[in-house]
Amino acid sequence: MHVLPAGSVSTEPADLAACAVDQGPVVDHQLPIAVVWAQSAEDVQMVMRAAHAAGVPVVCRGAGTGVSGGAHATEGCLVLNLERMNRILEIHPEDEIARVEPGVINSDLNAAVAEYGLMYAPDPASYRVSTIGGNIATNAGGLRCAKYGVTRESVLALDVVLADGTLIHTGHRTFKGVAGYDLTGLFVGSEGTLGVVVGATVRLRYLPAALETVAAFFPDVAAAAAGVLAVGRARVQPAIMELLDGHTMAQLDKEQGSSLRSRGAALLLIQTDGYAAAVEAGIIREVLSGLGGDIKAADAAEAVRLVDLRRHSRGAEVDDDFRVGEDVAVPRSQLVNYIHQLQDIADRHGVGLKVVAHAGDGNLHPTFWVGPGDVAKVPALNAALDESIDVGLALGGTITGEHGVGQYKVRWLGREQSEEVLELQRRLKDVFDPQRLLNPGKALPVAPRVG
Amino acid sequence: MHVLPAGSVSTEPADLAACAVDQGPVVDHQLPIAVVWAQSAEDVQMVMRAAHAAGVPVVCRGAGTGVSGGAHATEGCLVLNLERMNRILEIHPEDEIARVEPGVINSDLNAAVAEYGLMYAPDPASYRVSTIGGNIATNAGGLRCAKYGVTRESVLALDVVLADGTLIHTGHRTFKGVAGYDLTGLFVGSEGTLGVVVGATVRLRYLPAALETVAAFFPDVAAAAAGVLAVGRARVQPAIMELLDGHTMAQLDKEQGSSLRSRGAALLLIQTDGYAAAVEAGIIREVLSGLGGDIKAADAAEAVRLVDLRRHSRGAEVDDDFRVGEDVAVPRSQLVNYIHQLQDIADRHGVGLKVVAHAGDGNLHPTFWVGPGDVAKVPALNAALDESIDVGLALGGTITGEHGVGQYKVRWLGREQSEEVLELQRRLKDVFDPQRLLNPGKALPVAPRVG
Repeated sequence: MHVLPAGSVSTEPADLAACAVDQGPVVDHQLPIAVVWAQSAEDVQMVMRAAHAAGVPVVCRGAGTGVSGGAHATEGCLVLNLERMNRILEIHPEDEIARVEPGVINSDLNAAVAEYGLMYAPDPASYRVSTIGGNIATNAGGLRCAKYGVTRESVLALDVVLADGTLIHTGHRTFKGVAGYDLTGLFVGSEGTLGVVVGATVRLRYLPAALETVAAFFPDVAAAAAGVLAVGRARVQPAIMELLDGHTMAQLDKEQGSSLRSRGAALLLIQTDGYAAAVEAGIIREVLSGLGGDIKAADAAEAVRLVDLRRHSRGAEVDDDFRVGEDVAVPRSQLVNYIHQLQDIADRHGVGLKVVAHAGDGNLHPTFWVGPGDVAKVPALNAALDESIDVGLALGGTITGEHGVGQYKVRWLGREQSEEVLELQRRLKDVFDPQRLLNPGKALPVAPRVG
Repeated sequence: MHVLPAGSVSTEPADLAACAVDQGPVVDHQLPIAVVWAQSAEDVQMVMRAAHAAGVPVVCRGAGTGVSGGAHATEGCLVLNLERMNRILEIHPEDEIARVEPGVINSDLNAAVAEYGLMYAPDPASYRVSTIGGNIATNAGGLRCAKYGVTRESVLALDVVLADGTLIHTGHRTFKGVAGYDLTGLFVGSEGTLGVVVGATVRLRYLPAALETVAAFFPDVAAAAAGVLAVGRARVQPAIMELLDGHTMAQLDKEQGSSLRSRGAALLLIQTDGYAAAVEAGIIREVLSGLGGDIKAADAAEAVRLVDLRRHSRGAEVDDDFRVGEDVAVPRSQLVNYIHQLQDIADRHGVGLKVVAHAGDGNLHPTFWVGPGDVAKVPALNAALDESIDVGLALGGTITGEHGVGQYKVRWLGREQSEEVLELQRRLKDVFDPQRLLNPGKALPVAPRVG
């Protein structure tokens, strides 16, 4: 019989506290009954068999960088921590794939494959700290996904431990494959509610031969958002197209020592890549100059710094009672309109607003805020947030472009999806997890089993 | 109560015969009890409600161009023909999406969006005759998918009528969206066994500013396949990278009046696109010249003709008792090896072989053949085919890269997937179709319900 390695289990209060929450807003703080660090698929199978037999809920966890509470502990749960399963098992440069354990840090994989002229494309802003397993759980996006697709498009195959401890393999080592239903795609983005990913075969892309960065400052956010559509009309596909508003720039200047805000009230940060990077950047500069953009030709060092600043643009704070960040995606044509309406919502409720967006995808991360400790204004904050969701949905958007539903957004899912669609998903969940032990209360509104 | 339009139903023998099979090999010829042409989602709902109440199996059909028998009629079934649902409902150039009915022909959609500088990327060789609905059912690939991904990557949202007649909407109008499980992805490639797709929202891509075509002739297939890996090592991503062997070229010459075979025994046909098309083609020419390729710089007219020839490379014949085509995909590094082994298999069994491949994806379409009417050799043909599947799987491949399992390949699925994975899929199937009326005997080995 398989035995867990020494040091795999802890019930120390400090460990329980450290693994109780991710970076999402805390709605109902719970401590796990124990934390188990798995080091192999066999460890995970053993934990799942035991949990299954005892009827104990299991919450999986990687680096804990999620922002929707998908890894928050729930009542009476075991936290299954996968961060020690961090081996890159194989890099195959000719097949253009890598096989990894779930705890591998995104940037570690990218560093390892770069020497072969390859990259793992999905790059959430947290790529230096978040794990591939966590990226898979949320179907993470990132900056480059306008051109290279989200996590789903880079995952070819998975090893998954099911709720009863069975280990299965889904998908293909090949780029293409249509044998059977797309179980791989179903696990990606399922936030630990259908099974535990213990291995992934990912597709790698070619590291671009060149990068070119365009920084265009505009007098207001609406002008910058109009620039996004103008670049689209030019039929040029950037690798990165990010929008930062004035509040975001001011905050970055304060925290990072930059001086962005002095140059405009909105920044469109665009990167083209590949052999046509310079040509495409030239077209983009022309388009944006024509719209009144103040174009900065960034040199290589400054380009790295600007993109890096963008990756820090959530700010040092995590969401809390006085600051709530969102992740709505809207059709691209609605970008300008949605940003106007967000400002209107903030003004009417008397709360602050800053906006950063993966503009190429129409995926916005607005943050509403009130003064630290300003308890009286919390209801206004929540009302603004709620309204921003409804307005995003009314424009044809979704409640979450890339962060996941987790625990925090479960209450909104029914505003986006019909009862029939929710019920279908509950029945799928029951196929995989009939005891409803995997990450209860996350991703879907599902009642716990009674008795 | 909804009434089907006049002319929607036929039990005429000619109609039953015309809708009894697609282009896949016929294992068990059956006539449907009737054919119903739907013209709206309401028509489909009505048909499904009636079939559900009466316990009648339903086989959906578009243009009938599938090659795995996914649209073959089964015993006592109704064929639900969706080819009259052929309206393009919306083209939104700024959102870069289109909404279509399932019967829209792939090339009709491409023609309609081209005037906006956009394209629908998935381009199966049948794109001039096959429907978007059929492409979705099989998760069709095509020539361009090395760069732009398969059908799955271009489908954002679906309208689906479930087995009991319920109409649901899945997915998003936005490029990104992670709310709930990926039901859209689950329906794509499910070959009409989980629901009836009655509408699709698809992502459009930018029509490339330029195309450049490289035709490289080699003395043998192994040299051409080595060229595929060399292009990969140069880290240049072609839009199209097709490999044709000598037999394929000879057949094309005969049927299409070309003169390919005189120039080599294998052709690597590569297309680069976008602003860097010329630069990338230049690198590819240099790489392939270094490998001994006889490089032809194709002018625009010849490039169109060559790619067009490739799209005809299955030949005029469909698979029958004397000719069987396959669709194995292998890891790219195994291309050379697999082609060698295919030739060895053909030689040992005394049957003919021709090979064409979406080489950039490692997706091969070998055809084994014996002389027309050579009944004595049919067992050898089938033995060669069977062996080619096993060898492909042993190299880490899949039994179907893009054609689907359909009816013909159900017998092989258990060689690729474990019993646990098959059982999981059967249970998913039962969530969507508890009576097992949707396309029985296709995609998965599922026994019909007894009684």
